[in-house]
Amino acid sequence: MDEPQQEPMMTPPLYLEDFHVGEQFDGGTVSVSADEIKAFAAKYDPQPFHMDEEAANASIFKGLAASGWHTSALAMRLLVASVPIAGGLIGKGGELTWPNPTRPGDTLHLMTTVVSITPSKSRPDRGTVALRSELTNQRGEPVQIATMNVVVHAKPGAGRD
Amino acid sequence: MDEPQQEPMMTPPLYLEDFHVGEQFDGGTVSVSADEIKAFAAKYDPQPFHMDEEAANASIFKGLAASGWHTSALAMRLLVASVPIAGGLIGKGGELTWPNPTRPGDTLHLMTTVVSITPSKSRPDRGTVALRSELTNQRGEPVQIATMNVVVHAKPGAGRD
Repeated sequence: MDEPQQEPMMTPPLYLEDFHVGEQFDGGTVSVSADEIKAFAAKYDPQPFHMDEEAANASIFKGLAASGWHTSALAMRLLVASVPIAGGLIGKGGELTWPNPTRPGDTLHLMTTVVSITPSKSRPDRGTVALRSELTNQRGEPVQIATMNVVVHAKPGAGRD
Repeated sequence: MDEPQQEPMMTPPLYLEDFHVGEQFDGGTVSVSADEIKAFAAKYDPQPFHMDEEAANASIFKGLAASGWHTSALAMRLLVASVPIAGGLIGKGGELTWPNPTRPGDTLHLMTTVVSITPSKSRPDRGTVALRSELTNQRGEPVQIATMNVVVHAKPGAGRD
């Protein structure tokens, strides 16, 4: 691929051999409204500080805050749009922290870095790539730092015995 | 509290001193439909194997599968309903794996165990409780195993210098 990639979204699907440790993917931004924060919480995390401004003001959050899992879901939306893995982005799990809450009106930006690449010992057609994604708000404060392990296929015909 | 607790949901709010390592909380069950799986994915994880049966059949999942983050959100719903922490259940982060996908029609059951209790050194009015939650489907297969660190307040007036 000698052509410079002007459009990250148009990058061809990536195989295991295409990843390099330290490589970065810019996930762009997503904004979140108070209504969306409340709707997510009503379904999955129905606690007062995620659903009601007045209760949230009186809570440890001192204002309406998104569920951490809503923050995770928003990060996933940006990750899927920015890391075009062949066959799809399939997570095995990982670890995450929520250093600051996501607030109504926040515009969140995702930046993802390749941390490690581990070919499977038992299955030469695939491997695991660890991706560290930092989701920051418009003030540059992190709202989620996550390292997730994703399954990535080797190029068809490559890595076989 | 000498009375036996017949109704876990009616347990009074829990403070740091109320937790014991090894203690378990039964989170009950939640069911998930194909429509809900597709709706969550359309918003947060728009990949074919989460949104379309035919594409899912041809994928690594061999059938429609929920986003891992949808599984996390469903686990949170059961956790909030079953671990009544004073001031609310506030996660700092943690680690998780998705050993099996959540499927349409699954009924998921959550069981949570207290792993560790760590009073804060700098803030005697609070501490961190690590909760290990296992979410299993109706066949007893785990769909998520997560250990999350949550902020828990000490009893008012307790633990102060």
